Amino acid sequence: MPSIKQSHTQQIVLAHGGGGELMQSLIRTHVLPKLGNPWLDKLDDGAVLGRISGDIVFTTDAFVVTPLEFPGGDIGRLAVCGTVNDLAVMGADPVALSLAIVVEEGTALSLVDRILESVRRAADEAGTRVATGDTKVIERREGSGMILTTAGIGVRCESADLDTKRIVPGDRLVINGGIAEHGMTIMSVREGFEFETEIRSDAAPLNGLIKAALSSGCDLKFMRDPTRGGVATALCDLADEMGHSIELEEAALPLTPTVRHAAELLGLDPLTVANEGKCLMCVAERDADRLLAVLQSHPLGQKAAVIGRITDTVPPLVELATVAGGRRVVPRPYGEELPRIC
Amino acid sequence: MPSIKQSHTQQIVLAHGGGGELMQSLIRTHVLPKLGNPWLDKLDDGAVLGRISGDIVFTTDAFVVTPLEFPGGDIGRLAVCGTVNDLAVMGADPVALSLAIVVEEGTALSLVDRILESVRRAADEAGTRVATGDTKVIERREGSGMILTTAGIGVRCESADLDTKRIVPGDRLVINGGIAEHGMTIMSVREGFEFETEIRSDAAPLNGLIKAALSSGCDLKFMRDPTRGGVATALCDLADEMGHSIELEEAALPLTPTVRHAAELLGLDPLTVANEGKCLMCVAERDADRLLAVLQSHPLGQKAAVIGRITDTVPPLVELATVAGGRRVVPRPYGEELPRIC
Repeated sequence: MPSIKQSHTQQIVLAHGGGGELMQSLIRTHVLPKLGNPWLDKLDDGAVLGRISGDIVFTTDAFVVTPLEFPGGDIGRLAVCGTVNDLAVMGADPVALSLAIVVEEGTALSLVDRILESVRRAADEAGTRVATGDTKVIERREGSGMILTTAGIGVRCESADLDTKRIVPGDRLVINGGIAEHGMTIMSVREGFEFETEIRSDAAPLNGLIKAALSSGCDLKFMRDPTRGGVATALCDLADEMGHSIELEEAALPLTPTVRHAAELLGLDPLTVANEGKCLMCVAERDADRLLAVLQSHPLGQKAAVIGRITDTVPPLVELATVAGGRRVVPRPYGEELPRIC
Repeated sequence: MPSIKQSHTQQIVLAHGGGGELMQSLIRTHVLPKLGNPWLDKLDDGAVLGRISGDIVFTTDAFVVTPLEFPGGDIGRLAVCGTVNDLAVMGADPVALSLAIVVEEGTALSLVDRILESVRRAADEAGTRVATGDTKVIERREGSGMILTTAGIGVRCESADLDTKRIVPGDRLVINGGIAEHGMTIMSVREGFEFETEIRSDAAPLNGLIKAALSSGCDLKFMRDPTRGGVATALCDLADEMGHSIELEEAALPLTPTVRHAAELLGLDPLTVANEGKCLMCVAERDADRLLAVLQSHPLGQKAAVIGRITDTVPPLVELATVAGGRRVVPRPYGEELPRIC
């Protein structure tokens, strides 16, 4: 047992997950100093949030990204942003998050600290807190590894009337900035690519930007964060749901030269690559320019663009009007073969 | 790619987690048929639960148990019961659960189906539903594996006045049945032990039993489900919190001969072994018998027993009055070396 006693101050050991003294110490010396708040500090079986008025929205996401840290973020930032954004696209402001950590034996406690710090920073940016949590330790495998699962409770903005049934041909599709940045960052790190201009994950909490859009008075009918499966999957789902077609303008898609270059090297269509700080919005035609101005005046929407429109083509499809003047159908991706993107 | 096309109807492949067509098919042909309900069926980014009146309680747990299936339950039952019980011991009735599934490539879809079915059954028993979820697939490792994370939203029973500050010497400690059954089952399965009488996990949702106790009018001051770290950890935590000591009666501890025998074989103290269907309650002395009768009339409390009392010994400790007439201090376990108990 001496190895445990010696090593437990620097790395995770199995006993950190055993529910005993060492787990208490992990929580008190690592989790609470980073994430502490009146809800979490009680260390009860759950957090009493009290009364919440308004329509409650509930969501969850698991995160298995490899590597755990990457340019623009880490698994902690991803976990907070993913859940905050799922609430935000439902028109809801986050009230509280839960965080469950499954960590491999042998993981450096300094890495755990960095990731918890990042969770805290992202939660601060989103104006929310981790109210309750859980920690489990699993056996060592190929090295250090961590899986985070967040759930979130939000309250719906009363003025939001998001309903795909309200969408009509002519409505515009808007996105708040460059696509494919998260997925291309992860894959570039894994492949060891280096570019002149650094490629960075776009992971960011979008609730502030979305609140600005909702309170602008623009007639917003749909919002979704195009994560796994990218813009293509989100729009194929939308076409199915609303029963109308979508025409995307390739020339209008915000795409940095570095992301375009990385996608070409890997033979990937940026439309199918994950985003973690982007929101697709469908807005009434008359409000498109105004929405664009609202988004562009927010730090997370400076490169917002109108990228397409709803059409009455049948059957409902997503079509891309290419730069070369052609048209192609954007199919629903079958499923990425590359795991652990988020 | 033919192997993926051939195998994806029988086992999990990476593309099941890719956010594309195959993930849609997994959700529509496996998840919704088992767990479907009006919240989940919408397949939105989150579930709109609507207005909830009363104090809201929020909790989460990750489950990494190995093996995934065991006598008396499986990881699905465990995940639902764990979260329902965390709410219940806070005095809250479950409103909705979230379920995040991280599954290894190569896992049989028939196993996924059985576990989802078990999630559904346990949720039915608890009178709640999975409102929202997420699925991720990770690379194959030592075989099939699955990690489930549940979060739960509950509403606190208004008559509950659980507060360790109200506890006074003389108050009684009650448990609703046999201890150490879950942990000893998992370890016995792993060790390949066979006993004349089968040993089974006690995993069960306790909200019904706890509701009966709360509405009995008995003066309940504290409840906790002694999971990881067992009764010893829960009571050491309680002693610290309330600043009083606890005297446990070894002769009163409900322990089946099989569990006692298994613990002896493995050299474990049953007080430190995990339970997944037990609740420790602290009740005013005058109400102890009445509480016992209430618990014993419920299917999950037939073997309920008064196992100890609060004393004014200082400093606050947990002491065991042994069958042999001796006394020993019950220390807080350092941390189990055996991972993946729950």
